[in-house]
Amino acid sequence: MHIAITGAAGFLGQRLVHQLLERGELNGQAIRQLTLIDQAEPPAIEREGVELRCLALDISEPGALEPLLEARPDVIYHLAAVVSSAAEADLDLGMRVNFDATRALLEGCRAHGLSGTRLVMASSVAAYGGELPEVLDDMTALHPQNSYGAQKAMGELLVNDYSRRGLVDGLVLRLPTIVIRPGRPNAAASSFASSILREPLNGEQAICPVPTELELFVMSPARVVEALVHGAEVPASALGDFRAFMLPGLTVSVAEMLDTLREVAGESALARVRHEPDARIEAIVGSWPARFSNERARQLGFRSDRNFGDIVQAFLSEVSR
Amino acid sequence: MHIAITGAAGFLGQRLVHQLLERGELNGQAIRQLTLIDQAEPPAIEREGVELRCLALDISEPGALEPLLEARPDVIYHLAAVVSSAAEADLDLGMRVNFDATRALLEGCRAHGLSGTRLVMASSVAAYGGELPEVLDDMTALHPQNSYGAQKAMGELLVNDYSRRGLVDGLVLRLPTIVIRPGRPNAAASSFASSILREPLNGEQAICPVPTELELFVMSPARVVEALVHGAEVPASALGDFRAFMLPGLTVSVAEMLDTLREVAGESALARVRHEPDARIEAIVGSWPARFSNERARQLGFRSDRNFGDIVQAFLSEVSR
Repeated sequence: MHIAITGAAGFLGQRLVHQLLERGELNGQAIRQLTLIDQAEPPAIEREGVELRCLALDISEPGALEPLLEARPDVIYHLAAVVSSAAEADLDLGMRVNFDATRALLEGCRAHGLSGTRLVMASSVAAYGGELPEVLDDMTALHPQNSYGAQKAMGELLVNDYSRRGLVDGLVLRLPTIVIRPGRPNAAASSFASSILREPLNGEQAICPVPTELELFVMSPARVVEALVHGAEVPASALGDFRAFMLPGLTVSVAEMLDTLREVAGESALARVRHEPDARIEAIVGSWPARFSNERARQLGFRSDRNFGDIVQAFLSEVSR
Repeated sequence: MHIAITGAAGFLGQRLVHQLLERGELNGQAIRQLTLIDQAEPPAIEREGVELRCLALDISEPGALEPLLEARPDVIYHLAAVVSSAAEADLDLGMRVNFDATRALLEGCRAHGLSGTRLVMASSVAAYGGELPEVLDDMTALHPQNSYGAQKAMGELLVNDYSRRGLVDGLVLRLPTIVIRPGRPNAAASSFASSILREPLNGEQAICPVPTELELFVMSPARVVEALVHGAEVPASALGDFRAFMLPGLTVSVAEMLDTLREVAGESALARVRHEPDARIEAIVGSWPARFSNERARQLGFRSDRNFGDIVQAFLSEVSR
């Protein structure tokens, strides 16, 4: 079993690498080879019996993916992306990384005859937008109101068409907003959703740029990684006629998130959150829906977090480890 | 008023040119300039007071659209496309013409600062597919089961995103299956839908490659052209948060189409239709839905044909003209 990962140095990529190495197998086959790709060389994590290659490359450069494709991986995780705020600020950059590189990857799979390779791509709740029903389901149209979402939606269509044509065995998972991300804030418009918990729990100040009534559709890092692993194991025959769907997140308001913060870490933690409305952030995140009926995903065995308290506790136990 | 048309030598493009010249105005402004583009030079139709340019160019070539964009048209109709069967047979050709050229057109509008230019693009019912509800509406997801539909759906997302960013004033109309097309069969999978009427009405044989229970969502050429004209006149403020929707067609089964043929032209005409199932055609056309609630389009003033008899009569009166 040879697994390749784009965006492997990122937060999700690193978690996925560790999870895969811990399991030692995927789909009942021992993991013998890992190819990790990112703009900066991903950190090497040596493991007995696993041949590891860490490559620094810009996947939007022509031919950049050749070394990966020539090695004929059994599974490719395509996680590399320019996140929402950055893609909104720079249309060309977003198109190049979020769309063109996805297309180049698909074309590469086609050129190398990797029809049996499972390609698991991350898409996002940001692909939804505009006027939406109260509860969304697997048949709700994607009317993205941000360029990141539009680029991801285009990539979904391409992965689906290449899979339908038998050129690759693709699957796109639309990720909910991931909380609580470790580390520092990033250029994702949803970055605050982690900040308003992570920073106060670490004794630091945080800014909440949105009204507390705003609802988010969230998933913990552990559940997302579990979904990525599962995404490589779901049989192609179960995937039906469209290979992209929303993962089952948890619907939670910012107010509920802050309530949980107070319950877990007290009034002093809550007092570290300053409310400073940011119309730009609210416009982007406010356009993402927060209530879904995730029939497809649940039928295929993808799972949601049980409640928001669990998400916070999981973060605390990881931090203290 | 300067109007540019890609695919202007095609069946729809030619009809549109004639209709525009007959009206003499669009949006209350006299038409002073027409730029017609196609692979082969579109026929020149001289009209007093209208400056006409007919250009033969391959819109998928880099920079091909420069002469058009430099002239800063007020309205661009983007009709050029590789049709469904051809796009299914040649993925690269379909991507290049149906997607890359659309992207180049949008990028050109951006580069030339044509933010106020209304871009009216034709998409298709073929963008829908897979498991679908009994009646589709404006919120039904696009899960195309053919490359043509996938490429059109990607183009829709791009037109919407460029419009949302204020780089162009775009609008995408998803066309029903157009019947009755004049002329000869083409490489569209739906070509038979015109053939099984047109050929018998002309005293010729035709082949019906699908079961007669199959339902189609159809629109007459005159109504489609009317919709294209209207598409240039609908104010941007009315277009809402997603600039692509289905036009209001008519739901009709192949059996009903053949019944109408018999009513209009008798048993002898009906006998000219030979039934020869073609699994490839049925797979493509059978994946297109035939029942829609077209709320958006109707609210915006787009109209459907009254009944199928009218469509056949309109064809006969045009032919006899």
